[in-house]
Amino acid sequence: MSGFAFRITAGDGAARAGEIATPRGVIRTPAFMPVGTAGTVKAIRAEEVRALGTDVILANTYHLMLRPGAEAIAALGGLHRFARWPWPILTDSGGFQVMSLAKLREVDDDGVTFQSHLDGSRHRLTPERSLEIQALIGSDIRMQLDECIALPAPAADVERAMRRSLRWAERSHRAFAGEGPALFAIVQGGDVAALRVASAEALAAVGFDGYAIGGLAVGEPQATMLAMIETTVPVLPAERPRYLMGVGTPADIVAAVARGVDMFDCVLPTRGGRHGIAYTRFGKINLKNARHADDPRPLDETSDYAAARDYQRAYLHHLIKSGEMLGAMLLTEVNLAYYQSLTAGLRAAITSGRLADFIAATEAGWARGDIAPRS
Amino acid sequence: MSGFAFRITAGDGAARAGEIATPRGVIRTPAFMPVGTAGTVKAIRAEEVRALGTDVILANTYHLMLRPGAEAIAALGGLHRFARWPWPILTDSGGFQVMSLAKLREVDDDGVTFQSHLDGSRHRLTPERSLEIQALIGSDIRMQLDECIALPAPAADVERAMRRSLRWAERSHRAFAGEGPALFAIVQGGDVAALRVASAEALAAVGFDGYAIGGLAVGEPQATMLAMIETTVPVLPAERPRYLMGVGTPADIVAAVARGVDMFDCVLPTRGGRHGIAYTRFGKINLKNARHADDPRPLDETSDYAAARDYQRAYLHHLIKSGEMLGAMLLTEVNLAYYQSLTAGLRAAITSGRLADFIAATEAGWARGDIAPRS
Repeated sequence: MSGFAFRITAGDGAARAGEIATPRGVIRTPAFMPVGTAGTVKAIRAEEVRALGTDVILANTYHLMLRPGAEAIAALGGLHRFARWPWPILTDSGGFQVMSLAKLREVDDDGVTFQSHLDGSRHRLTPERSLEIQALIGSDIRMQLDECIALPAPAADVERAMRRSLRWAERSHRAFAGEGPALFAIVQGGDVAALRVASAEALAAVGFDGYAIGGLAVGEPQATMLAMIETTVPVLPAERPRYLMGVGTPADIVAAVARGVDMFDCVLPTRGGRHGIAYTRFGKINLKNARHADDPRPLDETSDYAAARDYQRAYLHHLIKSGEMLGAMLLTEVNLAYYQSLTAGLRAAITSGRLADFIAATEAGWARGDIAPRS
Repeated sequence: MSGFAFRITAGDGAARAGEIATPRGVIRTPAFMPVGTAGTVKAIRAEEVRALGTDVILANTYHLMLRPGAEAIAALGGLHRFARWPWPILTDSGGFQVMSLAKLREVDDDGVTFQSHLDGSRHRLTPERSLEIQALIGSDIRMQLDECIALPAPAADVERAMRRSLRWAERSHRAFAGEGPALFAIVQGGDVAALRVASAEALAAVGFDGYAIGGLAVGEPQATMLAMIETTVPVLPAERPRYLMGVGTPADIVAAVARGVDMFDCVLPTRGGRHGIAYTRFGKINLKNARHADDPRPLDETSDYAAARDYQRAYLHHLIKSGEMLGAMLLTEVNLAYYQSLTAGLRAAITSGRLADFIAATEAGWARGDIAPRS
């Protein structure tokens, strides 16, 4: 046995709360995974990420295979040791970044060849090599290589990429063969409901430890994303975790949890933090805005976290305007704290059967908006 | 009374250990002041700076007057509140940055007019305005405006700048008039011993709370700097703190303490940290060097600080090469921890009358150098 197991502990409508057991600890679901692209969640220490309530982080296979290299990480004892994060890690397959970052990529049925965005060096990813890299990294949850295409796209292209991703899922399943804690498949099919259903059914027939919904939040309207989730979730095995990749805003997460999704990753809280954006109970706040320049009030005086409660808005504004790293450090903490408190709130609400009330109160906070500027 | 007092608690040769009492806490001397240029010691939180053994930080009048502005800081409750550093702060006068950073500066006998390096806006600093700004910032130790010139320079230019700085010191003394905890004067005179003596004698005759030695570590050999310290220190009142501005390397600090200097500030540990340089018991280590790329060993396994003890060199190398903020954060901690442990060691050695032994052991560590690369 791999040491991987998912147990649903409560449900409320389509939503569920649960626990994923892994050899490196339990992941409470719904779970938000901060993105640790290149072996660090940017601008924050691992132990601080943990202290904010994080059970699992995501690491990017594409970035790590290019620098420092998968074999180098393995020789150093694996990513958990390297990055001083001894708790669960999920690795993506590299496919998404190849499509979005790499140069001169060529996809064929066997895999994808691309040039590094760092130095132009040529690399090849296949379903088998992606899993080999993820094993060298030593992650606890591994993802199949898939082909992501940008939306909107002709249905024929969407179907072709979905079918190829499906064949790669089957190859990944054979290559994985239980050698690691867990392998997740990725449902593709763009914004075409029938393709999503076909993808999910075929993957479920193969049998994976968990199922991701990929290729969403790539520019389509939120309504389209939610419709695809509603189409896909019922086809997936209820007893396996469901992971919506690359999503999203707090509102996206709440809506997806209500529709039965268990796991999320997104760069918004960390990337936003580096660019002056704070996510709070009262919505998104842009600290670059001049209205904060002379405001001695904190972002949220009732927050449990110093970064939101104890620092003047004027100071955060000053740090961001001055390009000071401390601004990124503090807002990264503000945002990850908010994302983790949001998912913790969702878990508690599902457990107590009060999800609708929790969502209504959460949305009321966002609708209230930020405090008024000082008069 | 201003709440400012200096008490010498021990001496060893020319070196002394002491305590500066300020309204915001005690500064143990010899003291190293991390530089908090624009209201933050870069890449580290105030409470972490404190936890590394820091009693006082330096803030730059030039940077703060330009952004966010001295009046803005005062309206927000002063720099201690703004930056969440409730302990002692020393502000410089702005003069050094005007000379090194500002555009189109014009010095006259009354003061200096310059253009901001940020937006080209015109500003004027006089001895009186500098103190007014420092009062608005609310610092605990304030510095007179002086004129710094680059070395080497003709003796006539050095003398002219020294005389002007002296007149500005007298104006500062009148303008200050006890309105604040403490005012320090600055000895100038370049590398001309007679000018240093004349400057120090004249300033001592006016009477200040402390005396800085300025205009050194600006490119001259270390021997010249030490000779100027040896020339100046005996002329300064023994019962007042002596502050060597902008210095320096660990070796500079040790040598200056042995010659009777009590206080230091320098950007080396923080700036170096952002550029891959680590200061350790075994000298300066450049983490960008490829020899660290596959090295699982920490910088210093016996360090009391996690950043030096628990992270692999390979990881620090990776972070710096990847431009990840965490690299700057960790090496800033490594370096400030080393600088503060060095000054703590100097204090203890002076107190126990074993300074020569401490210096010999410290220099032996530097001479040993870093551990060898892995074979």
